[in-house]
Amino acid sequence: MSSGPPPDASAEDLAGDLSAATISKKQLKKDARKAEKAEKAAQRQQQQQPQADADDPFAANYGDVPVEEIQSKTISGRVWTEIADLDDAAAGRSVIIRGAAQAIRPVSKKMAFVVLRQSMCTVQCVLVASVDAGVSTQMVRFATSLSKESIVDIEGVVSLPKEPLKATTQQVEIQVRKIYCINRATPTLPINLEDASRSEAEFEKAEQAGEKLVRVGQDTRLNYRAIDLRTPSNQAIFRIQCQVENKFREFLLSKNFVGIHSPKLIAGSSEGGAAVFKLQYNGQPACLAQSPQLYKQMAICGGFERVFEVGPVFRAENSNTHRHLCEFVGLDAEMEIKEHYFEVCDIIDGLFVAIFKHLNENCKKELETINKQYPFEPLKYLEKTLKLTYEEGIQMLKEAGTEIEPMGDLNTEAEKKLGRLVKEKYGTEFFILYRYPLAVRPFYTMPCYDNPAYSNSFDVFIRGEEIISGAQRIHTPELLTKRATECGIDASTIASYIESFSILLHLILISIYGHHCSYGAPPHGGFGVGLERVVMLFCALNNIRKTSLFPRDPQRLVP
Amino acid sequence: MSSGPPPDASAEDLAGDLSAATISKKQLKKDARKAEKAEKAAQRQQQQQPQADADDPFAANYGDVPVEEIQSKTISGRVWTEIADLDDAAAGRSVIIRGAAQAIRPVSKKMAFVVLRQSMCTVQCVLVASVDAGVSTQMVRFATSLSKESIVDIEGVVSLPKEPLKATTQQVEIQVRKIYCINRATPTLPINLEDASRSEAEFEKAEQAGEKLVRVGQDTRLNYRAIDLRTPSNQAIFRIQCQVENKFREFLLSKNFVGIHSPKLIAGSSEGGAAVFKLQYNGQPACLAQSPQLYKQMAICGGFERVFEVGPVFRAENSNTHRHLCEFVGLDAEMEIKEHYFEVCDIIDGLFVAIFKHLNENCKKELETINKQYPFEPLKYLEKTLKLTYEEGIQMLKEAGTEIEPMGDLNTEAEKKLGRLVKEKYGTEFFILYRYPLAVRPFYTMPCYDNPAYSNSFDVFIRGEEIISGAQRIHTPELLTKRATECGIDASTIASYIESFSILLHLILISIYGHHCSYGAPPHGGFGVGLERVVMLFCALNNIRKTSLFPRDPQRLVP
Repeated sequence: MSSGPPPDASAEDLAGDLSAATISKKQLKKDARKAEKAEKAAQRQQQQQPQADADDPFAANYGDVPVEEIQSKTISGRVWTEIADLDDAAAGRSVIIRGAAQAIRPVSKKMAFVVLRQSMCTVQCVLVASVDAGVSTQMVRFATSLSKESIVDIEGVVSLPKEPLKATTQQVEIQVRKIYCINRATPTLPINLEDASRSEAEFEKAEQAGEKLVRVGQDTRLNYRAIDLRTPSNQAIFRIQCQVENKFREFLLSKNFVGIHSPKLIAGSSEGGAAVFKLQYNGQPACLAQSPQLYKQMAICGGFERVFEVGPVFRAENSNTHRHLCEFVGLDAEMEIKEHYFEVCDIIDGLFVAIFKHLNENCKKELETINKQYPFEPLKYLEKTLKLTYEEGIQMLKEAGTEIEPMGDLNTEAEKKLGRLVKEKYGTEFFILYRYPLAVRPFYTMPCYDNPAYSNSFDVFIRGEEIISGAQRIHTPELLTKRATECGIDASTIASYIESFSILLHLILISIYGHHCSYGAPPHGGFGVGLERVVMLFCALNNIRKTSLFPRDPQRLVP
Repeated sequence: MSSGPPPDASAEDLAGDLSAATISKKQLKKDARKAEKAEKAAQRQQQQQPQADADDPFAANYGDVPVEEIQSKTISGRVWTEIADLDDAAAGRSVIIRGAAQAIRPVSKKMAFVVLRQSMCTVQCVLVASVDAGVSTQMVRFATSLSKESIVDIEGVVSLPKEPLKATTQQVEIQVRKIYCINRATPTLPINLEDASRSEAEFEKAEQAGEKLVRVGQDTRLNYRAIDLRTPSNQAIFRIQCQVENKFREFLLSKNFVGIHSPKLIAGSSEGGAAVFKLQYNGQPACLAQSPQLYKQMAICGGFERVFEVGPVFRAENSNTHRHLCEFVGLDAEMEIKEHYFEVCDIIDGLFVAIFKHLNENCKKELETINKQYPFEPLKYLEKTLKLTYEEGIQMLKEAGTEIEPMGDLNTEAEKKLGRLVKEKYGTEFFILYRYPLAVRPFYTMPCYDNPAYSNSFDVFIRGEEIISGAQRIHTPELLTKRATECGIDASTIASYIESFSILLHLILISIYGHHCSYGAPPHGGFGVGLERVVMLFCALNNIRKTSLFPRDPQRLVP
């Protein structure tokens, strides 16, 4: 019983105007005039819409609810049922549900279907005019007059359909007794949700059948994100994201980590200088934190032993790729090390295996929902995460015909290839590459004890893309000074430190290490990972903008 | 058996220089020269420090561990015990612990005490020279040469002391067999932890005894926050903070809320215009989010039904008070309302009662620790949170002799007084004041159905200070337009909207409400609360800087 009227022809047309890349008042006004026209048309249509009919003995069973009724007027004690909870066991029960009218399908004057959606779930509601049920033909007409995406309350009895339903997630129907519209949506929405929810396969099938379906582009989706977010896959993606964060926190809390919040407004123009958002803070130069790195180290130095942080990270990089954002959610951790930075790797191993398991076991519905629109293979991972040295990785690439500068870093292409090779050889798409060349890591990275050309550092990959970077940090001032000197920073005097670094870095370094003399920092290490990337790569999505609620890239600052 | 050498005389002296309010390169250099001098003295002292003696048959049992050994050289399989876990049941067991040397007390050439600290816990370690134990007089000398706050590994046997210990949290002692220094701290720390950990009562007692103790001022603490954070009360405060956030998340997740992350970089200069941090975003004017308000509304409009967010909030206000920060952690929630905004109040009631209970039941040790330095009365709250109307509040104040403009807002003084009156009358320091005058709330606040001079809004108070603000929001474009007009915003045309509001607000409003025509927003409401304020007021601390890890106020941007 597939349902749904034809796609809204004017949707793309209207949406096309509002490209975030070129937002301007002029354009907004143009867009506004167009919208006003559409709006007036909508108002005319709305005025013609049937309202509860005084002559109808069942007039009380339907109609638009005036806003006054929704202004917290009464507490009726009625209990709304979640559409997700409507299963066979509910058959015969009388329920009230509230949802968005995703589809409205008139069958005859006496019969109509309304599909209500709540989050990822949809249920088919059936109106059949009958005196016994208190349903009039006027009520059927009212239902069919509703615009898609209007918020609707339906009271009815749960029943089991004769044939299995294809178009809704729930396998029961609601025999409608009452139907009220809480908030009418305009009939000319900029995005048609059915268009926005189709898979590539559906488009191909339609094309083969000579049918032309409307595609909703990424920019249009993001311009009208509040509508786009209603697609089942988006509902699922951001629930998965929430669960990744929850499991991250839950696991680390169980390992005695303390959740902290470090400041995002920091003094000076940060160490790198480049790729930093600058601003004025009460007359002082300030910038937005590119990472909580030095702050989480300060927390460790401050006696917290193990800390984690979930918070925004800002990068003013002009990277227009599928995997970069100018603002993303960083999952960071830092911990004391007793002997070896593998203690950090062990945490990552346990943490991510726990996250993957949790998603596969507890988010089946969400993963299936994403799979319907964006099909993907489940992530292959091992119970005990594979660890390879950087040298082993280089060697594998070499044997496969890709020569890499042995003391350089991997580029994106090499990472992808290594991911494929590791998957073939070890049967995993999640692995740790450790013992990176010292030269390609920050100067505060701890060198290897047996070969100072290498470092106690690692990257972690999912499906051939780097998602985590981590290392043991230098905890003594003598070694830090030595490494600074080797990196071309004259660290022989503190005064030159101030010249070489920003005030910020200087202040942080003295907070951690003292003035070339230690405040007593314990050996420690940690790692950082981007929440959006974890979700993108776990679900094999093709663009990080799909896993950011309101993404920020070099072109996009709205909505 | 109280321990600890006299306070470090040079600490305050050195610390006084680095006032964040007047940070400058010149001053840093001055500070640096001073520090370099101190450092050289420290180095001289360190060179004179006894190291493991080749003639000592027990030389292997003590000494400074070279950094190479801590560069992830070995994984020994040894298991370190947490100081917190050292209780009577551990007596007779051999353990390894790592901690900061909080106090070192020589008794004789043959005996010394070292107090090791790990997070909030301390344990007394006893060295007694004896051939049987493998402890030489050289080893005792090595132990007494350690500087305070050095990171130290101790192997030893847990024993029960003859008399109860007063100076440590743990009631067992460690009979030291081996002692190794992992990282030596400078002997001239800018803050002495014992100074920083004293209560007001201790200062008063010492003063009465004619003794002068060093006080560590708030600015000095914050300048050297990485040391200051090691005090037991700070360790406890930030663990409490972490638990407030955890319980906030846990409770809302159990009520089907979804955790989201909204962008902190937003277009334009925000609705208010004032109190906003401005910056350039790839050539476009941008600002830092003052609240996730409109974004969480978009998420509701996007079909998420119930959302919460934990993230930084930025206010460029020049408020130098005990309760304002320029950057703080916002706990925000927004939810669909079926009938009445009391549904939001009910969530707040359940949520905060759950938080308070959780802290009182599961964070006893942390609360006791804070109480030792900053004594406070436990928060009085009711199982079912008291709700009073704004009018009732005004009336209570009036009867107590404080006249308030009935359609105005409460000032800080009136809030304090009302808090006292409510505590006297109802026995609670946590209550909801609802039905505020419409005029003192944002224009998108839903008016009361029965009297449009009032609104469906509320504030929540702890110990006479406002911590939560919330309301039902207008969900229909007609009413929003009406309210905008009443607030002096000409909303008759979309074009004037664009002139009146910033592009940002316009875009968000059309995302939520469409162009004066609805995209189908469900009735909804929500609230926001500052994490730091919850912790400050629950523990009755006198300054919000005590509950922010690295606070940002108009004067402070470092460290």
